[in-house]
Amino acid sequence: MTIVSLLSDFGEKDGFTGIMKGVIWSIAPQVQIADLTHEIEPQNILQGAIVLANAYAYFPNGSIHIAVVDPGVGTGRRAIAIHTANQYFIGPDNGIFSLVLQQAEDRGFPLESVELDRPTFWLPNVSRSFHGRDIFAPVAAHLANGRKLSELGTPIQDLVRIQVPVPVRTADGWQGEIVAIDHFGNLITNLTEQHISDGQSARLNVGEVSVTGISLTFGNRALGDLVATIDSSNQLSIAVVNGSAADRIKVKVGDAVHLVDARLAERKTHDR
Amino acid sequence: MTIVSLLSDFGEKDGFTGIMKGVIWSIAPQVQIADLTHEIEPQNILQGAIVLANAYAYFPNGSIHIAVVDPGVGTGRRAIAIHTANQYFIGPDNGIFSLVLQQAEDRGFPLESVELDRPTFWLPNVSRSFHGRDIFAPVAAHLANGRKLSELGTPIQDLVRIQVPVPVRTADGWQGEIVAIDHFGNLITNLTEQHISDGQSARLNVGEVSVTGISLTFGNRALGDLVATIDSSNQLSIAVVNGSAADRIKVKVGDAVHLVDARLAERKTHDR
Amino acid sequence: MTIVSLLSDFGEKDGFTGIMKGVIWSIAPQVQIADLTHEIEPQNILQGAIVLANAYAYFPNGSIHIAVVDPGVGTGRRAIAIHTANQYFIGPDNGIFSLVLQQAEDRGFPLESVELDRPTFWLPNVSRSFHGRDIFAPVAAHLANGRKLSELGTPIQDLVRIQVPVPVRTADGWQGEIVAIDHFGNLITNLTEQHISDGQSARLNVGEVSVTGISLTFGNRALGDLVATIDSSNQLSIAVVNGSAADRIKVKVGDAVHLVDARLAERKTHDR
Repeated sequence: MTIVSLLSDFGEKDGFTGIMKGVIWSIAPQVQIADLTHEIEPQNILQGAIVLANAYAYFPNGSIHIAVVDPGVGTGRRAIAIHTANQYFIGPDNGIFSLVLQQAEDRGFPLESVELDRPTFWLPNVSRSFHGRDIFAPVAAHLANGRKLSELGTPIQDLVRIQVPVPVRTADGWQGEIVAIDHFGNLITNLTEQHISDGQSARLNVGEVSVTGISLTFGNRALGDLVATIDSSNQLSIAVVNGSAADRIKVKVGDAVHLVDARLAERKTHDR
Repeated sequence: MTIVSLLSDFGEKDGFTGIMKGVIWSIAPQVQIADLTHEIEPQNILQGAIVLANAYAYFPNGSIHIAVVDPGVGTGRRAIAIHTANQYFIGPDNGIFSLVLQQAEDRGFPLESVELDRPTFWLPNVSRSFHGRDIFAPVAAHLANGRKLSELGTPIQDLVRIQVPVPVRTADGWQGEIVAIDHFGNLITNLTEQHISDGQSARLNVGEVSVTGISLTFGNRALGDLVATIDSSNQLSIAVVNGSAADRIKVKVGDAVHLVDARLAERKTHDR
Repeated sequence: MTIVSLLSDFGEKDGFTGIMKGVIWSIAPQVQIADLTHEIEPQNILQGAIVLANAYAYFPNGSIHIAVVDPGVGTGRRAIAIHTANQYFIGPDNGIFSLVLQQAEDRGFPLESVELDRPTFWLPNVSRSFHGRDIFAPVAAHLANGRKLSELGTPIQDLVRIQVPVPVRTADGWQGEIVAIDHFGNLITNLTEQHISDGQSARLNVGEVSVTGISLTFGNRALGDLVATIDSSNQLSIAVVNGSAADRIKVKVGDAVHLVDARLAERKTHDR
């Protein structure tokens, strides 16, 4: 039984996501459908790329992920499908799959991609603003029915990528940034365990706040403590124990985070 | 495999919609269930009717749509089931199916409707305030199991309709109204392509704003431009390119929209 | 076909709940999954316990309910699975199943519970903050695949309970409290039909407001009327007909509600 996951910035109130399920089941009634999220900020491609990148690997081999954050719908932007990491990805060619592609390359996975240019596999009438319904959903259903990527479109190589912020080396550590603020108000950075040489002495500066030491869990800390921790996606995060770091610290996505390696910082001081 | 779709004003926080799924699967474990939306404004029957009317036709033949926006629950209002357009509809007889019925009539589809008056097909204990759980969900499940409409209730004809706002002819075009504001802040009107004689010269007045020309896509317009366009449900809409028209223009559902046909307007001026 | 229901405080925006579905279907592709709600207030165990208690009995026998409101994740708190009332429950041992356990005891249902301490049935890498993905989802899937509770963990008896507020007898009736405010703004109390000796003459005092008489339905009351009623979960609730009681009366969860039995009140007056 094939799984189709849906990610979009459609919200839930207008019925758009239910319509996509209707289209999929009209063509492939046997598939199971899971919503990843429909609460990506309107047109925020990077946010969609991050949520998708943290999720897809937990799905069974052969799953199909439709991702529709699509500010360019109705223009010349291409519709694409990708096969890599034993998963399929369908959506606009606007960079929403940038992190999927990067991970595939980092791990040396084979990758196949096509431009969806065969109207046979679309709804008969394609609107100018809802390709999730008219192109991506039916293509996903045909894929679930056993069609090959090569039947659904024409091979392409030059997929659009967006700039994904990467940490930069500094004299005494790393400068990263906040890439997401989750439902609990945790501040998620693009720093990971590999940027930390010594968790105990590391210091994290964000906004006007400084946190010393990376906690392995907040369970052992007092309620309301501000802690730096490695989250379930292996990202360095700032959290408040049973509270919201976003409420405590006035920061936003894109703001800088400085990871200070105490040993490097000390050496620097000695050098002076 | 039968599909059941759910539409309501229940929101997601109280578990009401999950309970309905539990009831359906207790009787008909083989069905697939899709949420259309549960974010209809409390008691807003017209909004529910519009979302349902834009969605149902995308589902496979034989799908069952439960729609529960039900301010009259617990009073004498009837519970009904309808079969038309190769789809089934179950809910309160309060006008929520008005647009479905109108479309069926416009297209000459046969229509069968019954009052749900056979407690055999309900939960044993029927509450006074949650017929979604106690009546509509079990009836949908029995329908999915192969029961006929005529087994589930008594034929009726005089279904309740609500007033659906229709555009009115004016000296120089049409007066319509805003019938919905979607998740992206697009202003959806009850005007359609058929009200426009010449897209290029048409002018749309809404609130204190005037837009000239109907754009076929916003992709070719500059970021932040205010555009009038035909949306994916064939409705004339006002949008801001990659932004929110609702944030830009202070209007609400029910406000008037004037479509001025430049050629009619000119003729009128000449007449003077 | 086994049903798995999901309840959490995860919200919908980060993809956490979709990830759990991916994990479940990776192990048990045949299950159906229903979201109960993911909008429990962060860390509000009591609210989760109440929503779960009102929902589970509507699911088919053998259903599996995962409930993750888990402020203690990553600490020593146990992970547990319970079998009672023909349903399975999986989550943290922090009291979220208190009402399920109480109902099982009240009804004399047999109850089996285990501590989930067999990593064989978990994802290979267990994070410190997302046991929904790493432990609860895979355990639910193995249960759906036919594993027995006794294979998944070690029997335990002393499950953690939270204090669930219970009504207290007063001179002229009962003092209860508001335990929930639902999506419609109805104020749900912990008083039930059994606390009311005479609905017609009963008086309910909440905040600065007093309501006389328990209405069986609001359908027969005027729009905007404030009414006390028995809701679909058999709880005494305060509602505004087609409106929001929460908007009308300034109260919050935990605030006291006084049910005054007119006959007792009168007797008291006579005694004076």
